[in-house]
Amino acid sequence: MSYLNLSKAELEKEREVLLKQYENYKSKGLSLNMARGKPSPEQLDLSQAMLDSVKSTDSCISSDGTDCRNYGGFDGIVEVKEMFSNIFDTESENVFVGGNSSLNMMFDTISCFMTAPIYEDTLPWHDVKDRKFLCPVPGYDRHFGVTGYFGFEMIPVPLNEDGPDMDIVEKLVSEDDSIKGIWCVPKYSNPTGITYSDEVVKRFAALKPAAKDFRIMWDNAYAVHDVTDTPDTLLSIVDECKKTGNEDLPILFASTSKITFAGAGVAALAASPLNMKVLKKRLEFATIGYDKVNMLRHSKFFGNYEGLLNHMQKHKEILAPKFKTVADKLNEDLTDAGIAEWTNPNGGYFVSVNVYKGTAKRVVELCKEAGVVLTGAGATYPEGNDPNEENIRIAPSFPTVEELSLAMDIFCVCTKLACLEVLV
Amino acid sequence: MSYLNLSKAELEKEREVLLKQYENYKSKGLSLNMARGKPSPEQLDLSQAMLDSVKSTDSCISSDGTDCRNYGGFDGIVEVKEMFSNIFDTESENVFVGGNSSLNMMFDTISCFMTAPIYEDTLPWHDVKDRKFLCPVPGYDRHFGVTGYFGFEMIPVPLNEDGPDMDIVEKLVSEDDSIKGIWCVPKYSNPTGITYSDEVVKRFAALKPAAKDFRIMWDNAYAVHDVTDTPDTLLSIVDECKKTGNEDLPILFASTSKITFAGAGVAALAASPLNMKVLKKRLEFATIGYDKVNMLRHSKFFGNYEGLLNHMQKHKEILAPKFKTVADKLNEDLTDAGIAEWTNPNGGYFVSVNVYKGTAKRVVELCKEAGVVLTGAGATYPEGNDPNEENIRIAPSFPTVEELSLAMDIFCVCTKLACLEVLV
Repeated sequence: MSYLNLSKAELEKEREVLLKQYENYKSKGLSLNMARGKPSPEQLDLSQAMLDSVKSTDSCISSDGTDCRNYGGFDGIVEVKEMFSNIFDTESENVFVGGNSSLNMMFDTISCFMTAPIYEDTLPWHDVKDRKFLCPVPGYDRHFGVTGYFGFEMIPVPLNEDGPDMDIVEKLVSEDDSIKGIWCVPKYSNPTGITYSDEVVKRFAALKPAAKDFRIMWDNAYAVHDVTDTPDTLLSIVDECKKTGNEDLPILFASTSKITFAGAGVAALAASPLNMKVLKKRLEFATIGYDKVNMLRHSKFFGNYEGLLNHMQKHKEILAPKFKTVADKLNEDLTDAGIAEWTNPNGGYFVSVNVYKGTAKRVVELCKEAGVVLTGAGATYPEGNDPNEENIRIAPSFPTVEELSLAMDIFCVCTKLACLEVLV
Repeated sequence: MSYLNLSKAELEKEREVLLKQYENYKSKGLSLNMARGKPSPEQLDLSQAMLDSVKSTDSCISSDGTDCRNYGGFDGIVEVKEMFSNIFDTESENVFVGGNSSLNMMFDTISCFMTAPIYEDTLPWHDVKDRKFLCPVPGYDRHFGVTGYFGFEMIPVPLNEDGPDMDIVEKLVSEDDSIKGIWCVPKYSNPTGITYSDEVVKRFAALKPAAKDFRIMWDNAYAVHDVTDTPDTLLSIVDECKKTGNEDLPILFASTSKITFAGAGVAALAASPLNMKVLKKRLEFATIGYDKVNMLRHSKFFGNYEGLLNHMQKHKEILAPKFKTVADKLNEDLTDAGIAEWTNPNGGYFVSVNVYKGTAKRVVELCKEAGVVLTGAGATYPEGNDPNEENIRIAPSFPTVEELSLAMDIFCVCTKLACLEVLV
């Protein structure tokens, strides 16, 4: 029965029961971590053979004859540009392959536009003193970190089941030319796991921003990262923008961090010729080319895009039971109490839980004291400011199913306890 | 006998002889490249076993237990920080290990200071409208490219046998607070191959710049790159700056691009705590950490710093005959004519030749027509502006000794021909 319908005496009784469970967990001296979307060692092992794929001198030569050990190959080797063109659903000439981090490429993209104007008649963003960026919430803390670092005022926009609230997005960007962009994780969004609907993608492609240099940071981090047999599908923003003549609106990002190695993968971006011109004008001074041997490792390991997709099935086999554990525990332990809501994503790396309003920090604190580390409360909002103080991001990938099961038991107890502290 | 003492008839005769030689070379349809400081395949082969050093799951763990395949390890793995601390002659806590390119780290450093002030009471360099940078000449074209991209006025400073002309450097930086830094390749300078004298390093450490946020970009690219048995030694700028209380002046850069793989090495920077604080404030939003698996490959391959130094002996064995070939050819073919000067470096990647004034472009053009590609004339000066139009950079590393020998024959013929075109 919902806590909200219980008498004070009943709530106090419930609290006593939970406190005993909590003290029991605390006494175990556990150390469990559901804080970051880190692949588990078992997942990393799936790509171990990749380290063997480039060894001999001959194996260091890419398909067009480039010696990947040497300088050159500015925008990446042909076969990996091709691989990412499949992920991005765009032509391979629009792809630039970078180092080991798409976050780094997003940071550099914003950094580029801070000092280099996108058009001859627009300002470098550094010179736009009241520069702003739209931030769908809850969202990815590291995105908000980038625009925060560069001094943008960050405007939260509600993220619904089908994507950002487009009524609000359309209104804001059409009215204010100091709004220079929006952060998007269009598939299996971090942290709610939702995928933008076809209508939302079409509305993004049809935006008419007041700022000519408004850009959509389209972080397709989980493009091929399904965890169920009913995967979401995402409309191609590139195709839709071609139809609307808005090709220059989006810049796309992806990486193999959660395909091969989180610390030693390959990242890439895709952009229209105009955007690429501005970015490459910077990149040609910033680098002679990124690590081609590591690119080659990836292409040799996967063979082709189908090989990559088959590889993702193995990740799914490892991740699916973990997502199921989280869902089962939340359903079993929190449904009746009626004090929390959560998502059931078909892919990605996170489950998003809204606990009882105003108790997120307390839940995280209680969990921590019992040895369970969660992402900090508020992290999913710009500058950590969750107005309802309710959202908590759960990352099920790193712990084992057994650890996760225990961690979720503790999380559910803490969620209920924190709520009862308010209600009693 | 020097061309300058020959009669017009003698010069014409000489020219006829040379033209025949030149046409003969041209007819061969050669394709030789002395343009960039690229290691040869033979040099790259020296590190082939490195690709085998990290394979099994166990071998992916760094000395402090970090799984290098996963996220984390922001400033680099302990053992590689240690390796670079030896190269930089500084404490390993002052080292930050990056991706595959020190050029990229230099670019990011300037990019950082463009939008983030180094001190609370200084401006981001983007806001210094008349920002300037000192460029010792001849110097490295990619350095000048970075400050050119960011809109600095670049002031050339003569590079002497013992380093930049410090009288000029001291005068300029003490007078003009819009001068924000200077590019330095202190050991085996690109392209002249000279190493800064102890006195020059001490004078750098004792600089009293008008700009509080003036920085020395100390690109120690060739720290361990000797090609003779009489190597140069470089005083530690870090130690000297400690003595003068100027610890925040230099930022040091290095990489293994010319130690292991030019396209897949590891780069690092070293900076004082104050500089590191400004840089890390940016880096912590720009990356979760660079490729640790590749860092680990390097440390396992070398074992320790001595292993790295031993490895450099093998490069020396390959490079020494090439540098000797260049020196011999220049001595044999150009000494008598008395129309050119060149350097005889003890290390690094280049030989710098000053051809007859005003003929550098023509020499490069003649060489190109005969199938020998050189670095573009002027490349060693900011914005390609060599006032005497005389400097040409020769990169002997990539061709074989046989190819180099032929390429130098052609270079010498072209140098003489271009001069004769003026004199006759």
